[in-house]
Amino acid sequence: MRATVLVRPKAGILDPQGEAVRGGLDHLGFRVREARVGRVIDLELEAGSAEEARAALEKMCRTLLANPLIESYEIVLDSEGAG
Amino acid sequence: MRATVLVRPKAGILDPQGEAVRGGLDHLGFRVREARVGRVIDLELEAGSAEEARAALEKMCRTLLANPLIESYEIVLDSEGAG
Repeated sequence: MRATVLVRPKAGILDPQGEAVRGGLDHLGFRVREARVGRVIDLELEAGSAEEARAALEKMCRTLLANPLIESYEIVLDSEGAG
Repeated sequence: MRATVLVRPKAGILDPQGEAVRGGLDHLGFRVREARVGRVIDLELEAGSAEEARAALEKMCRTLLANPLIESYEIVLDSEGAG
């Protein structure tokens, strides 16, 4: 089963990478008010059902894929039309 | 206007970060066949129309947000239901 996890810095958390992207785009003449950079993780996992996959993905996010203190995550199973 | 850009390593391109994630998940007992790690970039930009925004975003991707040689990108305008 294929799944996509989007991990983003939470609102209010400093995002130096996003600030660098915003500065770079501004330098190139693009009018961008804000840029935030996170990670997109595409996974191919073994799971018997969508429920099982979602439960495993929740656990993966909390333990390894994201830092819940400063990052939020969003899970998209491919059957739901992944981003 | 809000937009999201997903930047991913192209198929066949080595992805050490994805390999590290796969190894880490495996170590934790998750059965994951493949993991690929890219970037998600959320932007707030000034644009008169969706067409204008999309054209600017295409240019941003080619010049700064992605390396088209080794990365593919996907643009989602918020009005279309961003990931």
